[in-house]
Amino acid sequence: MTRKLGRGVAVVGAGMSKFGAFPDKTGRDLFVEAYREMAHGIDKGFDPREIDAIYVGNFSSDLFEKQAHNAPIMVDVVGLTPRSATRVEDACASGGVALRQGLMAIASGLADMVLVGGFERMTALPTAEVTDTLAAAADGLYEIPAGFTFPGFYAAIASAYMHKYGLTPEHLMHVAIKNHANGALNPKAQFGVTIAAWMQGRVEPAKKKNKPVPAWQNEFDFLHDDAANPMVAWPLRLFDCSPITDGAACVLLVAEERARDFTEAPLYVIGSGQASGMPLHARADLTSIDAAQIAARQAYDMANVTAADIRLAEVHDCFTIAEIVATEDLGFFAPGRGYGMAEDGVTARDGAKPINTSGGLKSKGHPVGASGVAQVVEVWKQARGEAGERQVKQDVTLALTHNVGGTGQTCAVHIFERR
Amino acid sequence: MTRKLGRGVAVVGAGMSKFGAFPDKTGRDLFVEAYREMAHGIDKGFDPREIDAIYVGNFSSDLFEKQAHNAPIMVDVVGLTPRSATRVEDACASGGVALRQGLMAIASGLADMVLVGGFERMTALPTAEVTDTLAAAADGLYEIPAGFTFPGFYAAIASAYMHKYGLTPEHLMHVAIKNHANGALNPKAQFGVTIAAWMQGRVEPAKKKNKPVPAWQNEFDFLHDDAANPMVAWPLRLFDCSPITDGAACVLLVAEERARDFTEAPLYVIGSGQASGMPLHARADLTSIDAAQIAARQAYDMANVTAADIRLAEVHDCFTIAEIVATEDLGFFAPGRGYGMAEDGVTARDGAKPINTSGGLKSKGHPVGASGVAQVVEVWKQARGEAGERQVKQDVTLALTHNVGGTGQTCAVHIFERR
Repeated sequence: MTRKLGRGVAVVGAGMSKFGAFPDKTGRDLFVEAYREMAHGIDKGFDPREIDAIYVGNFSSDLFEKQAHNAPIMVDVVGLTPRSATRVEDACASGGVALRQGLMAIASGLADMVLVGGFERMTALPTAEVTDTLAAAADGLYEIPAGFTFPGFYAAIASAYMHKYGLTPEHLMHVAIKNHANGALNPKAQFGVTIAAWMQGRVEPAKKKNKPVPAWQNEFDFLHDDAANPMVAWPLRLFDCSPITDGAACVLLVAEERARDFTEAPLYVIGSGQASGMPLHARADLTSIDAAQIAARQAYDMANVTAADIRLAEVHDCFTIAEIVATEDLGFFAPGRGYGMAEDGVTARDGAKPINTSGGLKSKGHPVGASGVAQVVEVWKQARGEAGERQVKQDVTLALTHNVGGTGQTCAVHIFERR
Repeated sequence: MTRKLGRGVAVVGAGMSKFGAFPDKTGRDLFVEAYREMAHGIDKGFDPREIDAIYVGNFSSDLFEKQAHNAPIMVDVVGLTPRSATRVEDACASGGVALRQGLMAIASGLADMVLVGGFERMTALPTAEVTDTLAAAADGLYEIPAGFTFPGFYAAIASAYMHKYGLTPEHLMHVAIKNHANGALNPKAQFGVTIAAWMQGRVEPAKKKNKPVPAWQNEFDFLHDDAANPMVAWPLRLFDCSPITDGAACVLLVAEERARDFTEAPLYVIGSGQASGMPLHARADLTSIDAAQIAARQAYDMANVTAADIRLAEVHDCFTIAEIVATEDLGFFAPGRGYGMAEDGVTARDGAKPINTSGGLKSKGHPVGASGVAQVVEVWKQARGEAGERQVKQDVTLALTHNVGGTGQTCAVHIFERR
C-alpha cells in the first residue's frame, strides 16, 4: 500500500556546523552554529516565531554529555521556547527519523513550519568509551555480550559480502578514496583532505627531518600499510571507518503551499520511508539490510519514482562496506554489483550516480544524531547548485538520503525534488 | 491559532504492566507485559500486522540499562518488525509526547494504526544513581552543578508556593493520602495500600514483638514523624515523592473512521497540546508551569471544551506539590486555590473533579517513560466503566491527561472523549 502525506512539505533552508573534534563545544553550541547558518541562509528571510515545533535527532547525549531531555534545551538556545520540542532517537538514524516526524507534524495539520535538527557531541569522551557508548545502539542483551562492537558488526557484513560476491579490500579502499576526495572539497568536513594528501602529509615531514621516509608510491600502498592504516576488525582498516565527530545540522520545513514565501528554490520532500529490522545476530543474510530495502520502497512509491530516476544520493557510509550495501539496498545496483562502482567511477562526483558528494560520514564526519540531517544539507546544496567545488555537473532534480541506525535496526529514506 | 488534526484518532485498546520493583525484568520484559494486556483486551480483536508504526516513550534506557535504540527492540519483542519504530524522549513527558507523535502519524496519512508504548526500568540501579540519572532531565550546565536534584527542584516550587499562597505541609499530606487511597484500589499500583494501612503495617509487628509501639494516632501523626516519613528536601518528605519504578504501558490508536471495527466503546482523542518551557533557574515565578498552561490551552482549543467540562484527570504528581500546581495550570482551580482541594475532597474519587484516580505517579508508581501512557490507561478504564473498585460514580465522557518532563521544560496535555 502506497502511503501519501496528506499535505506536501518543502525544505526552505539548511545549515550545519563545522564537523570535527571540538572539545570546548557542548551539544548546544554545535546546535546553535547549525541553526544560525540555516536561519541566515533563508533566501527571502523568515520570522523564527513562525516555527511551530522543533524535532531534535540525537543518539545519546545521555551517555555522551550526561544530558537527556535535550530538545527543550535546544529550543531555548535558539530562542524558540515555548514551541514544542521533541527529541527523536533511533541511534545513527535519529536525524532521518526526526526529519520524518517533521513531515508528519506538518502533514497532520498541527504545524506549518518545523525546525528539524540533529546533533551529537562525541569527542569529549575517550575513544574506548565512545565505542562502548555506540555499542548501546546494538542489542545489549544478545549482541554486545558476545563481544561485538560496531566495527565488528560491519566487518561481519564485509566478510559475508566478500564470501558471497568476491569483494576485495581494494574495493573498499576505492570507496574511502572517493569519499575523501569529495570531503576534501567540503569546507565543513572533518577530514577535508584526499587520502593522497594525507599520505603526503606523512611523507614530507619525514623527508624534512631526515627520518626514514615511508616507501608508499600511491594511495593503495598507504592504505595497505598496517602502521599507517591499521586493521580495526578484519577486513576493515582505520580508513574504512567513519570518524568520531562533534557536529550539528538543521533544516527548515514548511507546508508546500508556503514554500515560495521563503525561497524561489525550495526542495520538496516527495518521498519518505522508515522501517525497522532485526538485530544482526537474527538475520539470515548479512549482505543486505531489509529495513533499508523496505524504507526505500516506501519512499519510491510515495514519490512515484524509481531508483534509476535518482540523480544523487547521500547514503549512510559509517563504514566503506555500508556504502556498497546501501547502494544495492536502494536499487541503484543489483545485489553483488555495487562493490565495483567506486573503482569504476560510477559513484564519483562526475559519475552516472554520484554517491556521498559531501564526503559522506566517512570523510565529512559522523556526529551520529546529526548525520541524517546533514545528508539533507548536502542534497539542498547540490540541488540548488550551491555545492561549490564539489558541485556535480548534472542537474540535481531528484536526490535521496539514506540513514541507518545500528546495523539496520532502523532505516529512514527520503526523496527530494527540485521543481 | 487553534490547531486541528487533519484526521480524527481514537484509542481502541490500552494495557499496562504491573508497576513496581522487578529487578529480574528488563525494559523489554515490561514492554511485552503491557503490550499483551493491551492486545488481548481489544474488544473485537485485531490483527497486529495492521499496526503501521510504533512509538516508544522512554527517558533513558541509555543510562538505566546501557541500551539506547530501544524502539526497534520493542517492535521486535512484540513481533512487529519491520514496522517503523521510533523512540521519543522528553524526560518524564516522553509517554505523553509519544502519544502526540502517534496522533500525528495517523493524521498525516502515513499510518492508520499506531502502537504507542512507554517504558522505564529504573530499580536495577542503586537509588543514588537513579537520582543522578534523573538529574539528566534537568539542565546539566546550569542547574545540576548548583547542587539541585529533582526533589530539590520541587521543594523550591513548594516553598515558593507556601510563601505566595499559604500552603502548609498538611495540604501536601492530603494529596498523598488521597492518591494512596486511590492506588490501594489499583491492582497495578506499586504501593497498593492506603497510608493508614501502611502505618498499621508498622504498628502491628511492633506490638506482636513487644517492641516500643509508635504513638501514631492517625495518618498525620505518621506523616509528621521524621523517622517514619523522613524529610527529603524541605518541605517535601518521603511520602511527598513518587517512587522509583519499573513499568510499561501501551495504547492502540486507529484512525477515527476505523474505531468501531475494534470496539463499540472507543475513546476519541479530541485535544492535544505540547509546549516547552525554560529551566527552573530561568523562570520569574515558580508557582506555575508555563508549558502546562500553553499545552492545556492548545488542547482545550482543539477539543473546543473548557476546564470545567473535564470530568476526570490524570495529572503529573511526581511530587505532591506538582499535583496542586498542575490542577491550577490546567484551569481546574484558580492560582493559589488548588492546594486545599484534596483536603476539601474536591479532587477525591467521589469529588467534583477527581484527580489521579489511578493513584497517580505518587502511589501507582512512576516509571518515567511509561507514565504518560499509563495515564491514558486509567482514563480508558474510567471512561469505559472498567476501573473496578476505584470507578468514579459520575459518567466520564471527557477526561484529560497532563504529563510533565523535568520541572516543566516539556508538557503534553491530551483530552479524550467517550461518545
